[in-house]
Amino acid sequence: MKILILNGPNLNLLGTREPEIYGSQTFEDYFQILQAQFPQHTLEYYQSNIEGELINKLHEVGFSYEGIVFNPGGYTHTSVALRDAIASITTPVIEVHISNPHARESFRHQSFVSPVCKGSIMGFGLDSYRLGISSF
Amino acid sequence: MKILILNGPNLNLLGTREPEIYGSQTFEDYFQILQAQFPQHTLEYYQSNIEGELINKLHEVGFSYEGIVFNPGGYTHTSVALRDAIASITTPVIEVHISNPHARESFRHQSFVSPVCKGSIMGFGLDSYRLGISSF
Amino acid sequence: MKILILNGPNLNLLGTREPEIYGSQTFEDYFQILQAQFPQHTLEYYQSNIEGELINKLHEVGFSYEGIVFNPGGYTHTSVALRDAIASITTPVIEVHISNPHARESFRHQSFVSPVCKGSIMGFGLDSYRLGISSF
Amino acid sequence: MKILILNGPNLNLLGTREPEIYGSQTFEDYFQILQAQFPQHTLEYYQSNIEGELINKLHEVGFSYEGIVFNPGGYTHTSVALRDAIASITTPVIEVHISNPHARESFRHQSFVSPVCKGSIMGFGLDSYRLGISSF
Amino acid sequence: MKILILNGPNLNLLGTREPEIYGSQTFEDYFQILQAQFPQHTLEYYQSNIEGELINKLHEVGFSYEGIVFNPGGYTHTSVALRDAIASITTPVIEVHISNPHARESFRHQSFVSPVCKGSIMGFGLDSYRLGISSF
Amino acid sequence: MKILILNGPNLNLLGTREPEIYGSQTFEDYFQILQAQFPQHTLEYYQSNIEGELINKLHEVGFSYEGIVFNPGGYTHTSVALRDAIASITTPVIEVHISNPHARESFRHQSFVSPVCKGSIMGFGLDSYRLGISSF
Amino acid sequence: MKILILNGPNLNLLGTREPEIYGSQTFEDYFQILQAQFPQHTLEYYQSNIEGELINKLHEVGFSYEGIVFNPGGYTHTSVALRDAIASITTPVIEVHISNPHARESFRHQSFVSPVCKGSIMGFGLDSYRLGISSF
Amino acid sequence: MKILILNGPNLNLLGTREPEIYGSQTFEDYFQILQAQFPQHTLEYYQSNIEGELINKLHEVGFSYEGIVFNPGGYTHTSVALRDAIASITTPVIEVHISNPHARESFRHQSFVSPVCKGSIMGFGLDSYRLGISSF
Amino acid sequence: MKILILNGPNLNLLGTREPEIYGSQTFEDYFQILQAQFPQHTLEYYQSNIEGELINKLHEVGFSYEGIVFNPGGYTHTSVALRDAIASITTPVIEVHISNPHARESFRHQSFVSPVCKGSIMGFGLDSYRLGISSF
Amino acid sequence: MKILILNGPNLNLLGTREPEIYGSQTFEDYFQILQAQFPQHTLEYYQSNIEGELINKLHEVGFSYEGIVFNPGGYTHTSVALRDAIASITTPVIEVHISNPHARESFRHQSFVSPVCKGSIMGFGLDSYRLGISSF
Amino acid sequence: MKILILNGPNLNLLGTREPEIYGSQTFEDYFQILQAQFPQHTLEYYQSNIEGELINKLHEVGFSYEGIVFNPGGYTHTSVALRDAIASITTPVIEVHISNPHARESFRHQSFVSPVCKGSIMGFGLDSYRLGISSF
Amino acid sequence: MKILILNGPNLNLLGTREPEIYGSQTFEDYFQILQAQFPQHTLEYYQSNIEGELINKLHEVGFSYEGIVFNPGGYTHTSVALRDAIASITTPVIEVHISNPHARESFRHQSFVSPVCKGSIMGFGLDSYRLGISSF
Repeated sequence: MKILILNGPNLNLLGTREPEIYGSQTFEDYFQILQAQFPQHTLEYYQSNIEGELINKLHEVGFSYEGIVFNPGGYTHTSVALRDAIASITTPVIEVHISNPHARESFRHQSFVSPVCKGSIMGFGLDSYRLGISSF
Repeated sequence: MKILILNGPNLNLLGTREPEIYGSQTFEDYFQILQAQFPQHTLEYYQSNIEGELINKLHEVGFSYEGIVFNPGGYTHTSVALRDAIASITTPVIEVHISNPHARESFRHQSFVSPVCKGSIMGFGLDSYRLGISSF
Repeated sequence: MKILILNGPNLNLLGTREPEIYGSQTFEDYFQILQAQFPQHTLEYYQSNIEGELINKLHEVGFSYEGIVFNPGGYTHTSVALRDAIASITTPVIEVHISNPHARESFRHQSFVSPVCKGSIMGFGLDSYRLGISSF
Repeated sequence: MKILILNGPNLNLLGTREPEIYGSQTFEDYFQILQAQFPQHTLEYYQSNIEGELINKLHEVGFSYEGIVFNPGGYTHTSVALRDAIASITTPVIEVHISNPHARESFRHQSFVSPVCKGSIMGFGLDSYRLGISSF
Repeated sequence: MKILILNGPNLNLLGTREPEIYGSQTFEDYFQILQAQFPQHTLEYYQSNIEGELINKLHEVGFSYEGIVFNPGGYTHTSVALRDAIASITTPVIEVHISNPHARESFRHQSFVSPVCKGSIMGFGLDSYRLGISSF
Repeated sequence: MKILILNGPNLNLLGTREPEIYGSQTFEDYFQILQAQFPQHTLEYYQSNIEGELINKLHEVGFSYEGIVFNPGGYTHTSVALRDAIASITTPVIEVHISNPHARESFRHQSFVSPVCKGSIMGFGLDSYRLGISSF
Repeated sequence: MKILILNGPNLNLLGTREPEIYGSQTFEDYFQILQAQFPQHTLEYYQSNIEGELINKLHEVGFSYEGIVFNPGGYTHTSVALRDAIASITTPVIEVHISNPHARESFRHQSFVSPVCKGSIMGFGLDSYRLGISSF
Repeated sequence: MKILILNGPNLNLLGTREPEIYGSQTFEDYFQILQAQFPQHTLEYYQSNIEGELINKLHEVGFSYEGIVFNPGGYTHTSVALRDAIASITTPVIEVHISNPHARESFRHQSFVSPVCKGSIMGFGLDSYRLGISSF
Repeated sequence: MKILILNGPNLNLLGTREPEIYGSQTFEDYFQILQAQFPQHTLEYYQSNIEGELINKLHEVGFSYEGIVFNPGGYTHTSVALRDAIASITTPVIEVHISNPHARESFRHQSFVSPVCKGSIMGFGLDSYRLGISSF
Repeated sequence: MKILILNGPNLNLLGTREPEIYGSQTFEDYFQILQAQFPQHTLEYYQSNIEGELINKLHEVGFSYEGIVFNPGGYTHTSVALRDAIASITTPVIEVHISNPHARESFRHQSFVSPVCKGSIMGFGLDSYRLGISSF
Repeated sequence: MKILILNGPNLNLLGTREPEIYGSQTFEDYFQILQAQFPQHTLEYYQSNIEGELINKLHEVGFSYEGIVFNPGGYTHTSVALRDAIASITTPVIEVHISNPHARESFRHQSFVSPVCKGSIMGFGLDSYRLGISSF
Repeated sequence: MKILILNGPNLNLLGTREPEIYGSQTFEDYFQILQAQFPQHTLEYYQSNIEGELINKLHEVGFSYEGIVFNPGGYTHTSVALRDAIASITTPVIEVHISNPHARESFRHQSFVSPVCKGSIMGFGLDSYRLGISSF
């Protein structure tokens, strides 16, 4: 199966920001671990801080790949356009979050993308991505 | 008159997505029909999934063209920045929608751009664009 | 095609109210222009300030005419009964407004009739009626 | 007992609208069945699409009849005036609905008339009227 | 000065309803007292339970009379159409209420007509009408 | 027909609480009257103050009985679980209330169970149960 | 009759602020006109910008005077304490406003004091005070 | 590891309800598959329709087991008591749902238990349970 | 006087949960102290995590005991059924809370039971119970 | 211990207002009873109708007294400034109310001061003060 | 230029409250530093905990001084009267806050005074005052 | 100190739009004035209409520069992603606005970025930038 791991805004800072607290593992490092855990799948990774580029990527792979594991970051709570993009494509999308948005500020309790995703996984740290891939 | 047809996010998928249902007519195909219907006008077409590029385009033509027919897609309901862009330019903008947002989810009932547009036309399928142009 | 132009409350004042500003053109005058613009259609005009008489008229023509262009005026925002009447008939109804309700007070941002109309056109002055007819 | 069956807007369309689905039984037909079911009562039937005429009728019979079975249709959710009329008369009023408003759009979940009626019956199709009469 | 006293729904019941409590004075009786109190004015009285007939009356006198004292009853809280009618005419309108709507149910705390009236007087019983006339 | 009369919390107090006002008739007494009124049906009665036991009972009879007349008491306004139970079974459920919740505090205006019931009857005192049974 | 005219915050600025627009008539000047218009009453005038001093004044005269005409200014919309003070005294209080709060910002549409006043008069300019006194 | 699978109201109906659609697999059947998939864990299963019994079970195992996979069903959206129970124990709890509550009615968009759970997994059908266990 | 101390969900965990922080004093231990402090009263203690069992207990003692000191725990904010139970009995009920719900999450700011209790005491730790008893 | 009893607006009217109903006991009379009940404490009493004077008093004693029993009256629901004053001082403050605000109008259900007080006691009549003092 | 520094409730506690944390610098001390930093201006300082005295001060200097730097403290969020006072005077007012209200409780996110001030500066500690003065 | 001046959407139009009203000074012109006013700082200027490019810029300089003065334009009110970006970097960010958003439409009263900024300055025209820089 071809599966895209898609990361939204600010997730490129993992490993850079406060390494003494969060460690110096970047998402690229973690992505290699994921690839090793799922030798049966072809995993691809893409990140952008630009809402429209995330839409472009969903369009590009959304009719041919078997799955997308998507962490929309802050766009989760504000983007109707991303919701429409997910609803427009045929590849199933899994929404993942590192922390649990429902345990944070109230404006993070609403997700525009949840209703059009196949499923949602949140609160397991980076392990949310592994669980997302293993749902396929 | 020089008139820009401006399309927002996901409208590039027309003709690609589920062609057995929606037909294989792309917006580019339809744009040629529009040009034939309005030989007295110079029509231009631009589409982007990136909110800021739509703003850039509005700035670029918004002081010289005679009209803009704009389908902001999902940004209709979430973008104050697009509203401000429309309010900043001198070219009159017509808001169009293929379906009627008021007949869909409640978060689509709010339009940030409506109050700063000259008029709004929604629910006529692709024909909404023709009606928009014929309002000039 | 037989098309009804249906006007709701206060629209009978056009041409009477402040003629030095709005001109002395009544809707009846404008209706003659509309008839000249659409010689291929049979246009009929009806106006009432009484909600229930508008419902009666919708019932009367709503199973035989080919189209209704309806400006519900102030009832747009408060009438479930008119919405139900439109949903009950088979003739497609186009909602039109002279000004853009979304640019006015917040209680005018809600339309009970929009979701059951074929389409909506607002903000083009009296020209909204011409666009409505030309959508058929 | 003298009992008025009072029907609000759009209920005159029963039997006319989509007879292949809803059957061709008009409310007048059904009213004859009701009369046969309650030989001990004098039943009267009145329908209007005009809110104020419904108020007039409530005033006319509301100090002399023994009961009113009232389906206010779309005015249920928007009419303070009908509520005041019911509160002003001495005849007990039973609110009935053919379908269950609470299973429809959220704006149908509020009833201005419920709090001033003796009781409410909803969701039983035309049988709601029979149940309403049998409550006296 | 020519002044119209305009009464909305259910106000025709004054004097009829519970005469042992409210007395048997009808509004017509009270209107004669008002006429005696203001010999300098020509007072006219009109009542209707039909929203659109109230609009018709406002249109009819609203460009020639010097004042209108209007008790919109239950339409106060639900009618955008009456608000638009008042805003459309040139005669100043005074909103009056027998009881104080703000001391009753919360849905009576909103008045669509207040913002377009010259002034509002409420809570003085029938004396609200006298105060309204004496404001001219 | 086998029909279950199901009573929710606090309804066991009928006849015990303030007998000088409400009389000393318990629901068990009234149930005997009901049985006499419907000799053609097999009526069963169950009451519990425990939400989950009401769910258990709905599960137990909800695939074999012909009808359930259910007064959910205070759980009407707070229980998604009861709503799901009613939606899960095949026996039609009639919601009944002794008083009219819409004439009481605003938190009683919402019913989670109404939308999944066949119909609702409220405000007729104990007679609401008789009407509920007679709807089958 | 002894009647107190009570003015809340900022009303001491009348006549001082922008005299070229509002004129140089202070409220004290206007109060002399009021006294001349009502020779049969003993009128007293008090103004304070301090909420608690207004409460003190209401307490001081509220068990002996025959009437209070009160313009609470900005405290109208925010003061539960003033509401409680009015409810605690026996002298009837008339709420007056120079302009119509319902035609201004939405936070001025709520009045804490209206429900406990005998009546409300608003929108007649300084004439609101005269109408208030003449209601006694 | 000792892990409890805890199911809330109505989940006992799986396999019984509409077997021609959902299949005749009960949760007990599925539980055996789960046990086979996780031979390294000791899995236990408990279901109750009674909110307080679910609390009792959380208390019973919540200080000794290594994990709880909890589908609170309809109590998800209404139970502060279950939230407090989860917050009171030391065993980490994973919230799972068969369908995605965010794609259903709006009252299912709020979860009282999410903020106190370690993580949430929803929308994967019965597979949500497997993913929940594999998060430990 | 016979007084019931009634505890709702999760209060059975006192003394068990985090004893190094909260101490190992159980509510049963504290209850013995309470009994010693009020030798003039007969105190009884009951706890349940099941909403309906709390209702049962209120019914059982609510017509014969002189007082009930009730900590409804998480049901405070969600239970109309408990409110109705308290309103149905004749024994006065005092609502107590260990911490102050108003200093916690916003969903804890609403209490369904407060309006039907004789009084409320919150925020004094276990001492809230002593204050509640001493109010009799 | 030195304890301040602090009373907010309108509480000076106790004993004056409607003595035939509430008795002629002033708060000063009751204060003497309180002093007799707590000979071990030095009690001080202060009342003001002026919000800022209550803040001044809180500042004055709030770093040296051992306790404050505060009835903020109508300021409870509107004063952020009083909340900030309580949060700024070191003396613990007990909020007391004679009646239960939660059983009154909805605007009394919010308390700005509760979250910063040590505890709250409401609904016990004047006895709320005694309970407040006995909490120290 | 003559500039008033105006401080609202609780700001008199600076330097007194928790000096080991906030230091023992009073606002009077800081005011001397400000005077030294702006030798070209005549600075005046006034503080009151009483809302109406702040209004009095605004009236007193608001037609002659060149600027007012105002920290309304807790009245920011609740005072329409202060808003009206600022709108009534001609001296421009700068709103300042030591901390950022938008980073605190949600009831601090609304400012009644912001819309009528020339500008707002918040979150810079005491330095907000210096920035405010340097805006003139 | 190295300080970035960061401008969001539509701010590139300054000087171009309506130069007869706003003047022909572009932000680039004004930036040169700023550089002259702060010779002790190294100022850099960046503008983009694309939300994600603003995030990219914040990431790029946000761990090395000493300060950022940011006018997010229309994204202020809609962008959680920008908020997260500001919260992720270590350079302090000052939010500035040319006009006062609180004096404009209500959807501009909410700022997602305020709570994570060091401070906010709004309403001073272009001078807001100078004040922002001088806060460092």
